[in-house]
Amino acid sequence: MRERAIRAIEECRKIATMSEEPGRITRRFLTPPMHAVHAHLRDRMESLGMTVHVDAAGNLHGLWQPRQGPGGKRLVLGSHIDTVPDAGAFDGVLGVVLALEWVEVAQEINAPFAIEVVAFSEEEGVRFGVPFLGSRAVAGRFDPALLALKDPEGITLKEAIRAFGLDPGDMEKAAMSVDALGFVEIHIEQGPVLEVENLGVACVTSIVGQTRLTMAFTGHANHAGTTPMRLRRDALAAAAEWITAVEKAALRIDGLVATVGKMTVKPNAANVIPQAVELSLDVRHIHDSTRRKAVEELLAEANAIADRRKLVFVSNKKMDEPAVPMDERLTSYLRDAMQAAGHPTKDMPSGAGHDAMVLASRMPAAMLFLRSPGGISHHPAEAVREEDVEAALLIGRKFLERLGADVR
Amino acid sequence: MRERAIRAIEECRKIATMSEEPGRITRRFLTPPMHAVHAHLRDRMESLGMTVHVDAAGNLHGLWQPRQGPGGKRLVLGSHIDTVPDAGAFDGVLGVVLALEWVEVAQEINAPFAIEVVAFSEEEGVRFGVPFLGSRAVAGRFDPALLALKDPEGITLKEAIRAFGLDPGDMEKAAMSVDALGFVEIHIEQGPVLEVENLGVACVTSIVGQTRLTMAFTGHANHAGTTPMRLRRDALAAAAEWITAVEKAALRIDGLVATVGKMTVKPNAANVIPQAVELSLDVRHIHDSTRRKAVEELLAEANAIADRRKLVFVSNKKMDEPAVPMDERLTSYLRDAMQAAGHPTKDMPSGAGHDAMVLASRMPAAMLFLRSPGGISHHPAEAVREEDVEAALLIGRKFLERLGADVR
Repeated sequence: MRERAIRAIEECRKIATMSEEPGRITRRFLTPPMHAVHAHLRDRMESLGMTVHVDAAGNLHGLWQPRQGPGGKRLVLGSHIDTVPDAGAFDGVLGVVLALEWVEVAQEINAPFAIEVVAFSEEEGVRFGVPFLGSRAVAGRFDPALLALKDPEGITLKEAIRAFGLDPGDMEKAAMSVDALGFVEIHIEQGPVLEVENLGVACVTSIVGQTRLTMAFTGHANHAGTTPMRLRRDALAAAAEWITAVEKAALRIDGLVATVGKMTVKPNAANVIPQAVELSLDVRHIHDSTRRKAVEELLAEANAIADRRKLVFVSNKKMDEPAVPMDERLTSYLRDAMQAAGHPTKDMPSGAGHDAMVLASRMPAAMLFLRSPGGISHHPAEAVREEDVEAALLIGRKFLERLGADVR
Repeated sequence: MRERAIRAIEECRKIATMSEEPGRITRRFLTPPMHAVHAHLRDRMESLGMTVHVDAAGNLHGLWQPRQGPGGKRLVLGSHIDTVPDAGAFDGVLGVVLALEWVEVAQEINAPFAIEVVAFSEEEGVRFGVPFLGSRAVAGRFDPALLALKDPEGITLKEAIRAFGLDPGDMEKAAMSVDALGFVEIHIEQGPVLEVENLGVACVTSIVGQTRLTMAFTGHANHAGTTPMRLRRDALAAAAEWITAVEKAALRIDGLVATVGKMTVKPNAANVIPQAVELSLDVRHIHDSTRRKAVEELLAEANAIADRRKLVFVSNKKMDEPAVPMDERLTSYLRDAMQAAGHPTKDMPSGAGHDAMVLASRMPAAMLFLRSPGGISHHPAEAVREEDVEAALLIGRKFLERLGADVR
């Protein structure tokens, strides 16, 4: 399978050249280079004997039917083909390219079920500020109100769909109505865990739940020279104390991640005691109860710090998404395939959202992670190792065989 | 003296109407309203029998000679008449207005020395980014290179001096060459100390020394969902730990103030672990050795935090100004006058810079602080209490009597 792995990586690199910006990989939802990607993938799909169509959300679908003909069960594979600005070559695209390699493997082993490969048009949320637009449509969870979203140039999603040559009125038809065996997504980890553990692949057990808040400490701006320490109401000193507490709490609770990523200080002058600090908090965990309890405790801590320092603390919940567990049966097949292919089994949660999370509401969903060298993603240095891609192909063969045994 | 105090406050309010902006007090160096202030103060000076001139730096000087005629020793009084944008009515101006009241008192008690009142043209550093331009000229410390400074409109200081009707070539003549008895500046505290201690006035023992640094922690930007806590190199978590240490150190060292007033987080996104944090540190203390030791320890702490977290820490010293002690003899006269006027004596450092700091290189200098209600300055709500202004006038009488006894 090594030649196949090399070819898959070359495919990703080729698709990476189809970009909005010369020299950088930027391919937002429904932009011109997306036509080039569709044309390229369509050629490959057709060479595999697949029938191809593009739905109203811009998702490219290729369907392979086994020799025994249509009407049977269908496995859905895929990932997304949009990127963040200045992206790497593998986030999303690798899952589509490997899905097509799995189709070739399925043909070789004469798999007794159909395979539909979907190249989702939108996952990153870059162009319209809302992610998973492609998989929402396929999962039948596309809210028509989203058509009014505007991109930074003021173009509505409805207009963008038309400009791409599609009919926004056909959105409902994009919802997959078949009785699918399930959905499997192959994706790079986008984190350092597998590299640190010296592993190439992992089964995703669950997409973590996520709470996102914005908050502010407000104190009193005063002269940095004339205001003694004990008479200060320094919003930044309060925020710093709290950020330290956030980190400590997250280190204490297994699997919890808590991040203050955004922070603005007012008035932000070297000789003025900070009056106000606005900040963000992002908390994720596979167990919703653990996550919600942690958020509550962190907010209580912030309030206690503000009270003690005579400041005002306010917070605003912007997101509260429950965890999405992957399908146990499908995941156990992946795990067994991993073992059968001679790889140590590894289960891990996904700290990031993925199309599989959206598809999970419609059908059994599972995910296979590939090691991210350096933990790097959303960056031109994003990479995959040949041996890990080869592992994903071997695992694919074992997985398809196992699923075939079930269907037969 | 109560009527005189009321009159002084009214004078400040009147001068406050001479502004660059309607409805707000903004009077930068050499701007048109400065002409109106000069005309107003010139009238008052001339009504006191003073001879008036404006030097090349735009400082307005009024000289009163006692009956026994010229040639005797001279006391210099004054403060600045420029303001920050959207200022209060008392920062600076009160010191000039009260200096003129002291001249009237000197006339009543027939003081045996001359008094020169200087209304310094520039102290705040707003227009050209460099403070103390007026007092530098009077102290003979005006670097001609400063004439090339540009204001935000691109006007050089040289051009601004000419546009105001003055000759930049005469700058050297602004340096006071007389053998002065000393310089006394009356100024609002601009801090909360006197109000908290329920006192109206204080002697300033020293202008604190100041170190200002910019610094940065640099770690690694990573996905907030996929990077476990123990594998992070979070620049903001490091900065927060350090800010907490800065506050603790400053609370531990008597009289030290340390402020992180400015902070910028990169990339500053809610779902990205901060890669870099740039921040400022402002440290002040009356003892230079205490201040420098504190700065060293805080930098060592920052380096230790960075090392432990595998981040890079860099710092850049932007300012390292030694403390300027006020003249002991002149200050003891002010202290005695305070007691003689029936007020509790109070010594305190000034955490902010003042013209007296610059004049101190040329002649003995002393400062009298008046309580700042609410600790507020550089704000339209800036105020003084009538009773405190009255105290400053009574103290003036006692001080001038004591100085007169010395001279006679």
